[in-house]
Amino acid sequence: MAQQKKMVEAITSMDEDFSKWYTDIVKKAELMDYSSVKGCMVIEPYGYAIWENIQKDLDARFKKVGVQNVYMPMFIPESLLQREKDHVEGFAPEVAWVTHGGQEELTERLCVRPTSEVLFCEHYQKVIKSWRDLPKLYNQWCSVVRWEKTTRPFLRSSEFLWQEGHTMHETAEEAEEETMRMLKLYEAFYRETLAIPAVTGKKTEKEKFAGAKATYTIEPMMHNGVALQGGTSHYFGDGFAKSFGIAFTGRDNTLQTPHQTSWGVSTRMIGAIIMVHGDDNGLVLPPRIAPIQVVIVPIAQHKPGVLEKSRELADRLGEQFRIKLDDSEQSPGWKFSQYEMQGVPLRLEIGPKDLEKNQCVLVRRDNREKIFVSLDELETKIPELLQAVHDGMYERALQNLHEKTFEAHTHEEFLDIAANKPGFIKAMWCGDSACEDKLKEETGGVKSRCIPFEEEHLDDVCVCCGKPAKHMVYWGRQY
Amino acid sequence: MAQQKKMVEAITSMDEDFSKWYTDIVKKAELMDYSSVKGCMVIEPYGYAIWENIQKDLDARFKKVGVQNVYMPMFIPESLLQREKDHVEGFAPEVAWVTHGGQEELTERLCVRPTSEVLFCEHYQKVIKSWRDLPKLYNQWCSVVRWEKTTRPFLRSSEFLWQEGHTMHETAEEAEEETMRMLKLYEAFYRETLAIPAVTGKKTEKEKFAGAKATYTIEPMMHNGVALQGGTSHYFGDGFAKSFGIAFTGRDNTLQTPHQTSWGVSTRMIGAIIMVHGDDNGLVLPPRIAPIQVVIVPIAQHKPGVLEKSRELADRLGEQFRIKLDDSEQSPGWKFSQYEMQGVPLRLEIGPKDLEKNQCVLVRRDNREKIFVSLDELETKIPELLQAVHDGMYERALQNLHEKTFEAHTHEEFLDIAANKPGFIKAMWCGDSACEDKLKEETGGVKSRCIPFEEEHLDDVCVCCGKPAKHMVYWGRQY
Repeated sequence: MAQQKKMVEAITSMDEDFSKWYTDIVKKAELMDYSSVKGCMVIEPYGYAIWENIQKDLDARFKKVGVQNVYMPMFIPESLLQREKDHVEGFAPEVAWVTHGGQEELTERLCVRPTSEVLFCEHYQKVIKSWRDLPKLYNQWCSVVRWEKTTRPFLRSSEFLWQEGHTMHETAEEAEEETMRMLKLYEAFYRETLAIPAVTGKKTEKEKFAGAKATYTIEPMMHNGVALQGGTSHYFGDGFAKSFGIAFTGRDNTLQTPHQTSWGVSTRMIGAIIMVHGDDNGLVLPPRIAPIQVVIVPIAQHKPGVLEKSRELADRLGEQFRIKLDDSEQSPGWKFSQYEMQGVPLRLEIGPKDLEKNQCVLVRRDNREKIFVSLDELETKIPELLQAVHDGMYERALQNLHEKTFEAHTHEEFLDIAANKPGFIKAMWCGDSACEDKLKEETGGVKSRCIPFEEEHLDDVCVCCGKPAKHMVYWGRQY
Repeated sequence: MAQQKKMVEAITSMDEDFSKWYTDIVKKAELMDYSSVKGCMVIEPYGYAIWENIQKDLDARFKKVGVQNVYMPMFIPESLLQREKDHVEGFAPEVAWVTHGGQEELTERLCVRPTSEVLFCEHYQKVIKSWRDLPKLYNQWCSVVRWEKTTRPFLRSSEFLWQEGHTMHETAEEAEEETMRMLKLYEAFYRETLAIPAVTGKKTEKEKFAGAKATYTIEPMMHNGVALQGGTSHYFGDGFAKSFGIAFTGRDNTLQTPHQTSWGVSTRMIGAIIMVHGDDNGLVLPPRIAPIQVVIVPIAQHKPGVLEKSRELADRLGEQFRIKLDDSEQSPGWKFSQYEMQGVPLRLEIGPKDLEKNQCVLVRRDNREKIFVSLDELETKIPELLQAVHDGMYERALQNLHEKTFEAHTHEEFLDIAANKPGFIKAMWCGDSACEDKLKEETGGVKSRCIPFEEEHLDDVCVCCGKPAKHMVYWGRQY
């Protein structure tokens, strides 16, 4: 057994080197491969299957609230990008520029979209004429490019896959409601599909999106206490709409400007899944998005009946679950390690003795619990166990979030926690970005994550400057 | 009624100006919008929903034959593109070049992928080590860019959406089989899902893909007799594999080179759907990919019970079909025209008199046939009618293909048909590309479409030069 296990190369333990543990998993679970294009990655079949399951689930949620998918061009002419001042300042430094088409130099440079607000606005300007045309609730699934200096698989890459929703509304109130509705939708998706709890709230002025009036965020905590900005929803007011001359005839026959939102999540979520749920044996996948929900491993498969029964089970269960039967010649021990590495939620073992008893063994990936189950009860037992795996994963992640969230009541305490206790810090803040800058510098990178929707009153004054506090803020390091 | 119909603007008739008829439909059925980026388009919700249905159907067919989805970078370094000589010659003149990232000039230009053979090869070089790693059957759904001088919505655009499959095999035979399997898969998809018949066969040397050993094609005929290259499947032999140093240890322990294929279809298919099935009232959509399969139009909807019953039907039928209830204040006449323009396969009309009789009227989009159906029988009648619409559409398209396919036995006859009868020409060919060039020039654009899999022996000699004939070829103009 020990010898067999060696065949699946061990990965670095997370306590030893979290960062290396992460890259070991993405490589050894065959999620991605590096390419010769700096900062871009190849998403391999197993990684892409996770993304497809994410897309399917999220897309159904979008459609349920009336969102329609579209596709916008991947290029943005430089003059179009410049139409909204704050926006271009935020993005121009990190875009890829196309200057030549075929043999000819272009008369105007095109950037590869880093995000598509301006393209949606250009289209909306043409199709929104009356209040009857509103709301417009459009989304696109596509890849975007941001020329990053340092990159990391899934977490930060020069090109990444995402969805970006862009909506237009009759009133500011409706647009604000939409911004919140989509943030709540993301929160529900993280909880119900990815088994990931998170802090949600509003970004400070300093941290908000280029050109937005307000940015709301979902911030899950990774196992090592570091935050990941897991998704954002922006309220734009009518700023872009005015810059793009979008106007409609209102119910009262006056010409009005619509109010706008945008919201997005990306393949970063795969990074979050790895770092929230993974362990020293590899990936641990939430059952709802696992490409393989149950792997069937025959034991002593040369013995009469074992393979036949395994195949029969694979066919039978394949109608209801995503099943893989591994009847290759590798040893069961090798297979156990391999599918643990790939984070398969349930392993079904079946051998000659099980056949005699009309049973099999189900082993949970999350806690390695073994359960003997009658072959007649699999259709009801498996969904129960998948749900138990999901719940167990969520609970452990929630516990980690709680255990690694600290309160700081003084400047000294803030610095002490930042230096010694990885995680989130709850502390009061005066509302001045100078204090954000100062804390970030003093701690070597702790930034405001968000002002939560339900603030606690921890103290009367700002943890940094001692002036009257305006908000309670979650602080933390980020990927 | 006449007045109401005016509200939905009429489109140019196809006999008057086929090209204008086409652009009228894409605009008025709200399939796409132009953008400020030359040659790129905005695919609007209705057009994108067609693409989503196409993707869903095709993707399931791919998965059934073992294909796995992946995602490759959108950029190709210039040196990587140059690795295969014929390939770079074919594509370099029509690619978009990225020269700057952020503020900095790149040390090496990157092209935006026009197709991804070289990226797949680079990856395969790393992951293929043994015959056990074969076959590799990868596909990706993405957008590609080819810098076109003249563009047309869906038919030819600088950026378009497609799928590109790239496979590697142990032997040449297996790769050749794969090439044919995928072409047959496309043919079945066209027939069973798009209701489009087509000629299939092998491209001549002159018309094959840059770098391929053989290109197979599916060539549906548009209503006006012009061909559209509807999908291609390429056999590469081991040329790319050798250029990229891809090698594996074979079953006999010798080092071998794998054999490669690629195959793809794109958003052009939406153009084919329009031009094969459309009529002077607008789009006619094949039921299997129609975003709305049945539109419910209440008649005299202010009368008691009409709207209630319409809503009840929409809920009930919505479980089984893609349904839209239009209970807006537009007149029924306006709605009839609108959903005819959008090509909805079935219209369900229900008014006060129908309510009394517990019935409704179903109207087919393809032939305007009206059928009275009991409300109790809708669940069985609608699928029958959708199938009848599909079959009727296929039959009419097949008839058009047959009626517009001509035989040419002499050079003179060839030129006469090319000048006077739009459609395909079947004629014998010597195998020399000089004859292809000559016929193209003489006819102002008639090219070889393909050498069909089942050739007829029409004559002994080439229709152009009179030398001994090697093949029967389908010839025609193309989009």
